[in-house]
Amino acid sequence: MFWKNFFKNSQLFTSSISNSQNNNKKILIIRQCIEYKGKPVQLVFSMDKSVNIREYHQLCESVGWECPSIQKIYTAIQNSFLILSLFYKKQETIQLIGFARVTSDQVFNAVIWDIVIHPNFQGQGLGKILIYHILDQLRSKNIVNIGLFADASVVSFYSNLGFIKDPNGIKGMFWFPVD
Amino acid sequence: MFWKNFFKNSQLFTSSISNSQNNNKKILIIRQCIEYKGKPVQLVFSMDKSVNIREYHQLCESVGWECPSIQKIYTAIQNSFLILSLFYKKQETIQLIGFARVTSDQVFNAVIWDIVIHPNFQGQGLGKILIYHILDQLRSKNIVNIGLFADASVVSFYSNLGFIKDPNGIKGMFWFPVD
Repeated sequence: MFWKNFFKNSQLFTSSISNSQNNNKKILIIRQCIEYKGKPVQLVFSMDKSVNIREYHQLCESVGWECPSIQKIYTAIQNSFLILSLFYKKQETIQLIGFARVTSDQVFNAVIWDIVIHPNFQGQGLGKILIYHILDQLRSKNIVNIGLFADASVVSFYSNLGFIKDPNGIKGMFWFPVD
Repeated sequence: MFWKNFFKNSQLFTSSISNSQNNNKKILIIRQCIEYKGKPVQLVFSMDKSVNIREYHQLCESVGWECPSIQKIYTAIQNSFLILSLFYKKQETIQLIGFARVTSDQVFNAVIWDIVIHPNFQGQGLGKILIYHILDQLRSKNIVNIGLFADASVVSFYSNLGFIKDPNGIKGMFWFPVD
């Protein structure tokens, strides 16, 4: 799995990855991964859909995203095929600092949406790790057709991760209501 | 609803649309809609997920698509948010001649996949009708972010239906496994 190779080769990540079932939550724990304010900190990755919506709201606000209603966020998460939350662990508390989710037919196609990293933790490769972990999950389910719609400002970011824009002339298109 | 306006204004469609619940199947019936071999024929639209997979296979083959396994098709359909089948009704039998499906988080985003019309029925606006009906369904659920990935050969088709490619510089991107 390139996910494991990624960690092995990464300069940011120096210690082990463990998979654990914690209170029936799908959690990946990665220890002492990055530095924050000069000290190594623990990161916790979770695929559990029981996301704290208030924390998700705060994360959206931190990057200037418009925050939808709690009910809408809840519904979208429940109807996503895969979600990935990233927490910064400080003593006994954890803070949501990253998030991404995927819609899919669970067989052929998957689309990655809403990749976000808190500004205080950007620039340390965490977005890349979120994406790699998602790719790894989707590949483990043999889903080959993995796409996303990238804002112009992040096309190069995804290109660097191996995403190809307009492959074989395929175009991302959107329909907007005419009100 | 522009769906109803579309039918009202269409030269192809001369009679009424009725919604009916038939054996708990979500069926829209449209009568005497198009001509086939010189005679008006009935079309039946269905959103029911109990698709005859053998018929779906035949439809894929008719347009030269690679046909996945029955189990994969079944799973993909069950995990699609919305499917739309189009049948040509001949006496007491119906033949699947069109299909499309949608994945969605049911709130924010939806992506339309696998729009197909049997070659014998192409060129009569049926693809357009499939898309309009899907848009209508998604809009009725207040899903605004409606996208698709269009092959180069059909970009102009979707442009004519109001889809915009690369809106605000947003790029469709795909990740492919390196084997």
